[in-house]
Amino acid sequence: MQQRIAYLGPAGSYSEQAAWDWSPNAELVPVESIPAVSDAVVTGSADVGIVPIENSIEGGVTFTLDLLIHDSDLSICGEVIVPIHHCLMAQRNIETDSIRAVLSHPQSLAQCREFLGKTLPGAEITASLSNSRAVEEMMRSSPTTAAISSGRAAQLYQATILIKNVEDRTNNETRFVVLSNEDSERTGCDKTSVCFEYGGDAPGILSESLREFASRNINLVKIESRPNKRNLGRYVFFVDVEGHRSDRSVSKALEALENQTAMMRVLGSYPMKLRENV
Amino acid sequence: MQQRIAYLGPAGSYSEQAAWDWSPNAELVPVESIPAVSDAVVTGSADVGIVPIENSIEGGVTFTLDLLIHDSDLSICGEVIVPIHHCLMAQRNIETDSIRAVLSHPQSLAQCREFLGKTLPGAEITASLSNSRAVEEMMRSSPTTAAISSGRAAQLYQATILIKNVEDRTNNETRFVVLSNEDSERTGCDKTSVCFEYGGDAPGILSESLREFASRNINLVKIESRPNKRNLGRYVFFVDVEGHRSDRSVSKALEALENQTAMMRVLGSYPMKLRENV
Repeated sequence: MQQRIAYLGPAGSYSEQAAWDWSPNAELVPVESIPAVSDAVVTGSADVGIVPIENSIEGGVTFTLDLLIHDSDLSICGEVIVPIHHCLMAQRNIETDSIRAVLSHPQSLAQCREFLGKTLPGAEITASLSNSRAVEEMMRSSPTTAAISSGRAAQLYQATILIKNVEDRTNNETRFVVLSNEDSERTGCDKTSVCFEYGGDAPGILSESLREFASRNINLVKIESRPNKRNLGRYVFFVDVEGHRSDRSVSKALEALENQTAMMRVLGSYPMKLRENV
Repeated sequence: MQQRIAYLGPAGSYSEQAAWDWSPNAELVPVESIPAVSDAVVTGSADVGIVPIENSIEGGVTFTLDLLIHDSDLSICGEVIVPIHHCLMAQRNIETDSIRAVLSHPQSLAQCREFLGKTLPGAEITASLSNSRAVEEMMRSSPTTAAISSGRAAQLYQATILIKNVEDRTNNETRFVVLSNEDSERTGCDKTSVCFEYGGDAPGILSESLREFASRNINLVKIESRPNKRNLGRYVFFVDVEGHRSDRSVSKALEALENQTAMMRVLGSYPMKLRENV
């Protein structure tokens, strides 16, 4: 049966791009919010859901981490890294001199500020609810209106790309995680994500916990702390390590970590994607 | 002389709120981007600059961290934590039933999605470039148009607040840091921010570095890793610890850390603000 993937819509978003990268032949199910992605998997209207987790241009991070800590029993079964490349596009191939207005999501506009200042200094800058919506609106506007969005959105709405890679900084990417009822089997090149919280406030405890991994030669891929809003001064830690939770060393380290913490949740083990040097 | 504070404008933004919290009598200098905040301090057109660093609704985080690692020699001399409370506002006191359109920044709209669905199911949702701009545009629109923005923006544009705290999640806040040519003197309740990078890829090295703090009884307040895009698989770590860099124990720990790392930068020591339990 064709896999169904829920993602933060509308079609043409970088989340859709991530879903497509994950499984080009799947049925893509756009939903309206990050919690709705999780709901779609829980209720069975999708098999997996894809959500942005790091450096999102569409504001996903906080929503996603909160979802994983508090509001979801789903596991991470994979990850997708999407390089963010914005394109300037219009209805037809026109000179940039003739462009009178530019539409995009405010965060994308901020990421292309220098480009806009140099190339389109006189154009009126207008906000859209999403990068996809910007293209849709542009296609219904005057032919001298342009949009900034993904190449995928240009394709979807049959817009003409005028200039590629108009973002000011080249190293822009978003990491997505794939949520499912189960995580993934061991492949030999895996990553395990875990979140945990301590009961008390002891200076050395995080260092001790990380030593459970280090002493077993397990590489730390990522670490992040976020305030736990229920208790002043308490933190939830998110850690990604190399290896699968079924590996003997990882399993031993997680067991030791669980004994040190007041709460620990293995969010899942899944094949590791290497970042492209973009 | 009156202190001049550069911040990410326009007036009425949560950044302006942070600047105002920092120093109510200062001259506030709105600028157009996060790098422009730093430039204003470097060129002397402002004494300090204030930039969002965590959980920003205006897209600050990536820009700010990149600025601190690569593009600025300024120090952090303070922090401000602003609870984010959105208000629904209009030109006059009208019934919510009569509201036909709502304007705001897309990220604020996303943060109020449930409220909008329940209270204003029929209203047309429209994007603005910023929350402040939304209020400005609303004041020039039909009286049945509303905006979602800060209480400060309502005051500034003389809008009427219809409902306060319309955000779906109550624990929403943004942390700002204050950038200056120098960091702050020791007060006895301080925090030190540091970023560092290792030369090689050794599993235990972060745990060893954190032990430099733990063994000296120095509390870790925050830790974050970000990919260093120049070298595949390499990370830059951001760590906040309790104490001032002039404290003997902190100074010793930083010295030890510097010997373990390929790059280390003390971003500054400054008075610690406790998070409100919002």
